[in-house]
Amino acid sequence: MGRAHRVTLLGTGLIGDFYTMTLHGRRGLDRVEVAYSRSEERAAAFAQRWGIPQHTTDLRQAVEHPDTDVVVVGLPNDLHEQAIVLAAAAGKAVLCTKPLARSAEEARRILDAVERAGVFAGYLEDLVYTPKTRKAVAAVRGGAVGEVLWVRSRETHPGPHSAWFWDARKAGGGAIVDLGCHCIEIVRGFVGKGNRPVEAMCWTDTLVHPIDAEDNAIALVRFESGAIGQFEVSWTFRGGMDLRDEVAGTDGTIWLNHFLRTGFEMFSSGGSGGYVAEKAESEAGWLFPVGDEVSELGYVDMFADMFDALDRGGEPAETFYDGYVVNAVMDACYRSAASRAWEPVALEWRGGSTPRVARAAATHDGRTVIKRETLPDGRVKLILKDERTGDFEDRVVSG
Amino acid sequence: MGRAHRVTLLGTGLIGDFYTMTLHGRRGLDRVEVAYSRSEERAAAFAQRWGIPQHTTDLRQAVEHPDTDVVVVGLPNDLHEQAIVLAAAAGKAVLCTKPLARSAEEARRILDAVERAGVFAGYLEDLVYTPKTRKAVAAVRGGAVGEVLWVRSRETHPGPHSAWFWDARKAGGGAIVDLGCHCIEIVRGFVGKGNRPVEAMCWTDTLVHPIDAEDNAIALVRFESGAIGQFEVSWTFRGGMDLRDEVAGTDGTIWLNHFLRTGFEMFSSGGSGGYVAEKAESEAGWLFPVGDEVSELGYVDMFADMFDALDRGGEPAETFYDGYVVNAVMDACYRSAASRAWEPVALEWRGGSTPRVARAAATHDGRTVIKRETLPDGRVKLILKDERTGDFEDRVVSG
Amino acid sequence: MGRAHRVTLLGTGLIGDFYTMTLHGRRGLDRVEVAYSRSEERAAAFAQRWGIPQHTTDLRQAVEHPDTDVVVVGLPNDLHEQAIVLAAAAGKAVLCTKPLARSAEEARRILDAVERAGVFAGYLEDLVYTPKTRKAVAAVRGGAVGEVLWVRSRETHPGPHSAWFWDARKAGGGAIVDLGCHCIEIVRGFVGKGNRPVEAMCWTDTLVHPIDAEDNAIALVRFESGAIGQFEVSWTFRGGMDLRDEVAGTDGTIWLNHFLRTGFEMFSSGGSGGYVAEKAESEAGWLFPVGDEVSELGYVDMFADMFDALDRGGEPAETFYDGYVVNAVMDACYRSAASRAWEPVALEWRGGSTPRVARAAATHDGRTVIKRETLPDGRVKLILKDERTGDFEDRVVSG
Amino acid sequence: MGRAHRVTLLGTGLIGDFYTMTLHGRRGLDRVEVAYSRSEERAAAFAQRWGIPQHTTDLRQAVEHPDTDVVVVGLPNDLHEQAIVLAAAAGKAVLCTKPLARSAEEARRILDAVERAGVFAGYLEDLVYTPKTRKAVAAVRGGAVGEVLWVRSRETHPGPHSAWFWDARKAGGGAIVDLGCHCIEIVRGFVGKGNRPVEAMCWTDTLVHPIDAEDNAIALVRFESGAIGQFEVSWTFRGGMDLRDEVAGTDGTIWLNHFLRTGFEMFSSGGSGGYVAEKAESEAGWLFPVGDEVSELGYVDMFADMFDALDRGGEPAETFYDGYVVNAVMDACYRSAASRAWEPVALEWRGGSTPRVARAAATHDGRTVIKRETLPDGRVKLILKDERTGDFEDRVVSG
Repeated sequence: MGRAHRVTLLGTGLIGDFYTMTLHGRRGLDRVEVAYSRSEERAAAFAQRWGIPQHTTDLRQAVEHPDTDVVVVGLPNDLHEQAIVLAAAAGKAVLCTKPLARSAEEARRILDAVERAGVFAGYLEDLVYTPKTRKAVAAVRGGAVGEVLWVRSRETHPGPHSAWFWDARKAGGGAIVDLGCHCIEIVRGFVGKGNRPVEAMCWTDTLVHPIDAEDNAIALVRFESGAIGQFEVSWTFRGGMDLRDEVAGTDGTIWLNHFLRTGFEMFSSGGSGGYVAEKAESEAGWLFPVGDEVSELGYVDMFADMFDALDRGGEPAETFYDGYVVNAVMDACYRSAASRAWEPVALEWRGGSTPRVARAAATHDGRTVIKRETLPDGRVKLILKDERTGDFEDRVVSG
Repeated sequence: MGRAHRVTLLGTGLIGDFYTMTLHGRRGLDRVEVAYSRSEERAAAFAQRWGIPQHTTDLRQAVEHPDTDVVVVGLPNDLHEQAIVLAAAAGKAVLCTKPLARSAEEARRILDAVERAGVFAGYLEDLVYTPKTRKAVAAVRGGAVGEVLWVRSRETHPGPHSAWFWDARKAGGGAIVDLGCHCIEIVRGFVGKGNRPVEAMCWTDTLVHPIDAEDNAIALVRFESGAIGQFEVSWTFRGGMDLRDEVAGTDGTIWLNHFLRTGFEMFSSGGSGGYVAEKAESEAGWLFPVGDEVSELGYVDMFADMFDALDRGGEPAETFYDGYVVNAVMDACYRSAASRAWEPVALEWRGGSTPRVARAAATHDGRTVIKRETLPDGRVKLILKDERTGDFEDRVVSG
Repeated sequence: MGRAHRVTLLGTGLIGDFYTMTLHGRRGLDRVEVAYSRSEERAAAFAQRWGIPQHTTDLRQAVEHPDTDVVVVGLPNDLHEQAIVLAAAAGKAVLCTKPLARSAEEARRILDAVERAGVFAGYLEDLVYTPKTRKAVAAVRGGAVGEVLWVRSRETHPGPHSAWFWDARKAGGGAIVDLGCHCIEIVRGFVGKGNRPVEAMCWTDTLVHPIDAEDNAIALVRFESGAIGQFEVSWTFRGGMDLRDEVAGTDGTIWLNHFLRTGFEMFSSGGSGGYVAEKAESEAGWLFPVGDEVSELGYVDMFADMFDALDRGGEPAETFYDGYVVNAVMDACYRSAASRAWEPVALEWRGGSTPRVARAAATHDGRTVIKRETLPDGRVKLILKDERTGDFEDRVVSG
Repeated sequence: MGRAHRVTLLGTGLIGDFYTMTLHGRRGLDRVEVAYSRSEERAAAFAQRWGIPQHTTDLRQAVEHPDTDVVVVGLPNDLHEQAIVLAAAAGKAVLCTKPLARSAEEARRILDAVERAGVFAGYLEDLVYTPKTRKAVAAVRGGAVGEVLWVRSRETHPGPHSAWFWDARKAGGGAIVDLGCHCIEIVRGFVGKGNRPVEAMCWTDTLVHPIDAEDNAIALVRFESGAIGQFEVSWTFRGGMDLRDEVAGTDGTIWLNHFLRTGFEMFSSGGSGGYVAEKAESEAGWLFPVGDEVSELGYVDMFADMFDALDRGGEPAETFYDGYVVNAVMDACYRSAASRAWEPVALEWRGGSTPRVARAAATHDGRTVIKRETLPDGRVKLILKDERTGDFEDRVVSG
């Protein structure tokens, strides 16, 4: 059984609500003890909403509060570095929401700060902790789909809920920084964290909203093994929040749907009011709620991993180094969108080397077997290649 | 924040594993302190598997153990009464797995025992606690589907995993006692717990397995409001474990799928090995795992409700009285299967009265409006009934 | 290649539109030549809409028209008998929409009329002809699910579109006569048409609409083999038209969804106007159209079977005898709803005999094998029954 | 009613089977009269299988056969040009399977040939004719999703069935030429055929099969309006044939699934044998057949459009010019895969001009409205941008 932790929570927006709902639910050991907001009004309201004993608008006081041993950073992106540096200086464990930083350079400084201080640091990338993702990654590790060839991660919705997301100066970018960071880490989970992201190709555009940052982006990320990651992010999607992942391997396929099609379907002629789900667009017609939102979005498993790792003196599944890698990939995506060509991912790589995906080719009668099919009548048909001539032929062999 | 509870767990079978996996996971406050099994070997293995400090084959010693304040009964059905009576005598809170008893008469004695002793008693009906069910019931309470007219609950799989389930003397019946108990309580949740189950009509048969008990059953349960509940249970279903619920109301519809179609789809050519999900039939081809099984099956929310209720001195959502009602409905089902006609549900009803579902009929030009449709061209068509002549007519009225 | 047929179509309502859309689409050989309606205005509009050369309000003239060889009856239920008797007298092939009649007695007279006259007669039960149903029935015939144990057929929507459906005097009943007739024939297709429907148990109620006929019904139909059919029909369902079938067999399972979840999902913020699908309730929010409605609803394959059978001088898959059986089952349902007990299906049975479903029980060490499971570690566990003592045991045997 | 056409079919492989199954089914007017194969054995077997009166191994004789007025080309890609030139010379209508050619240059010569000859020419791109695609495109044209921003078309399976597909010399490429051609035309249907494909960015790799051609590719195609098309093609996908399309617009979303999830789900413990669907990988476990394969794959509607257009003297929805555009886009994809940057689509454009997608920005209190949200309490929150300072703010305005 773990030690009970007491948390300083920095930030009282939507993510602060989700974090506290997770920590204070399900008969958990750990509690938020101190809440910090830049606004006294929001800090007080938040503390009352969640039964948090203390709140403050003094960042340093919050971080250094003697009753807490863990600092959780749920602030806008431009405020991460300052908060983390303070927490590291205070010698406290620090957990930071996604993305870690606005650029790889900033992430690198943050990473250096916690490594120099020697404090525990966890990257709060919730979507790699959804129960489906964790089980799917375990299945992939166990060989269920063979070698991973392709991963698609899609995160799209009608646009974020707070002003600062839309301000590229504070956020560091648009939909990529907001949503692509999730996708990149999901993709890394499937292709393997020791599989170096080599280069990226990215399209961005601002199609709908009157902003400077991108409201749509698609990127391809090529990994050392040859596996390709693909992310699609949008702030203009209609119909709710679309969180889906797909994995194709040499021996199998995985399709995950985290939000809009999870086995909960409801038609309502309206009039009931009430919250359906994050980014839901309607309260009538066919609706697709999720069961337990903080579980389906990964918050429950994420905090369990963080505190369990802290208790055992190990590393969580998602570290600040991972956050730094994500920023490095996003930087490459932005460079590619500008150069309109593939761009290398520039980063200090700690993950070792992964061989190229490969399958040994079978031969039949001196020819390479391209494909083997069982015909309806039970006979086996081979497609063969003569490597000398380059010719292909169909050949039916006895079953 | 709740008090930490220490649990005596009676029974170390599959349900004991699920219960302990739930209590010991997700950084929970509460722990199993003492494990009891009739077999020393199983008790020891279970204690080691889950890091439980103490284990025993002495039931009384387990129940009365001074380090625990809660007794959880996870034993075969024929052993519930004895264990609960002991726990009640020991003045401990007692939580009992489903079904509460093998008959309403036995359930009534159990209910009396805990009520006389004044101990906290919770009915561990996990499937009404699945996140989807809880959210759906809340939506129904909020009016999202209007008045509930019909509920279908289906629970089918290829048959239980332990010998005693198949022995009607120990289990009290077959698929109805094993699975129908879930369905009845799910249905009650949707039609309202104050809505009295009036009568039942049930078909049973033993179609596949060489046993005396039913391996298939379908029942209709009519409630005081006129709402109809329908359950389908089977020990002969192929393809995994099918847990689905459907609700139809005057203003909406709900479809829940808890297990085989939850947004996790995997194709594997095989070879990976590994556990897919409870009652899964295969490790190759298209597979449909669930993300977090103990969450999807309701165990997490169930124990949270139980211990939270205990802490605040209130009642859990599922009480022993509910267990007794379920047994009374199942008794009526068995009587109906024998008599081949509707049979009244015999029980001491504590739930008050629910009015008949009803909608006020609109009138148009002195006639009853049966239906109102908007035509493709925007005009409105009414189907009208002349109550004097009994004649019906179509009438297009201006949009 | 078939002979081109020329059709007299009786009735110009929704079903007449669907029939003609089917016949005149997809480069078909066969055409509607004469349209009949009781109203000159509707007849003329219909003929113009579909390019039909001739129309009339004289029933006899329509039936006996020298340019047509086939009479298709798409009239209200109370007008079927008269039209069919006229067609039989005219010596023409006659195809009649569902249900064949308002009662088994009326159906029997209709059946006698065409058999006496020796004319080709086809029962236009479209939903057994949906491409999914046909392929699923073929899979069942091929053994894909073993012996059929249970079939559920559900057809529900918010209520029919024309006044006469709501008038039990004209329709012969309510939701059962309108929708249950489809379900019964779907069930028969899966359990086998040679499998006699022995008895029925039915619940009906009028829960929402101010009518005398039932707006909701559920029935169980027991077949000679022991297989059970279950139908659910409603005129109060919200969310569109729900057409789903499920089959459970000893070796497999089939789930069909014909309408609301067929792989076509659309979210629209509204404003587009336009027809979505039959009985759709909305033009905004999440919508679930079907691709080709007359194909998905079975009309295309139905008419192809009818005319092909006529050309080869054989019988179609759905005959007037099938229509008569359906009426006989519905009669038993109505009797059961009144008597509140199982009622025998009274009919002249021509389908032969079907044995009871059965599986030979395996034995191990002198005991009956109840279940065989492979454990996670690869060992095999048996659940065994000692037939002398009636005791059950778990036994792990070497893999 | 149309004229009956008599067809010369060139090629007797899988596509020839699908074409003839379509033409000879559903009581169609049109028939295959002459079948041509390079092999006498295959020609004879094919003619017998489908009841085709005449067959030959002489290409010219087949094309010029006096009994036929339409030539359908179902030959390997490298044989299209010769066959079409012959048909054009014979003055016959010619319909050619996809892709039209191996390159835009070859396609251009083919286009010129039929235009010079003045014969009717239809491009047999079946997947834009699936009932779902046609209805979805109609909904998009009607405004259901607003302006189209993004389209994804995915076509993947475990690899083609005949040797020539794998030989890049005959096929003109790998998975792009085989599958990407479908995707490009599907995308064009949704973004509008008058929306010029401007440039393409493409990744290809040969990850699994021992061939020179690509077995995996992903491409982005940017259109004049700013809309982006995305295709994913693979010959290494496991689990069947995955045909899915997604459309995102300013006001809505469309998701189509043509093959693996269409509302037909079957579990079989095996042993039934039998054909499940094209490219299905298994006959046991969970299977996902389609109802009517030639309808779901678009063949029925495709030939209906072709022959109807021929009868009325107009153009079909898919012309040889469309086939040429597809080849031009594929050429740009291959160039991009080589150059690793965006490449312009080089083609003679006949489609006019399409404006940039755009939405007029609303203002509030002199600031740009970025987003408008209704809060749970009914108040409205705006996210506003001050265009002078570039600052963003949240502001709650009265509902």
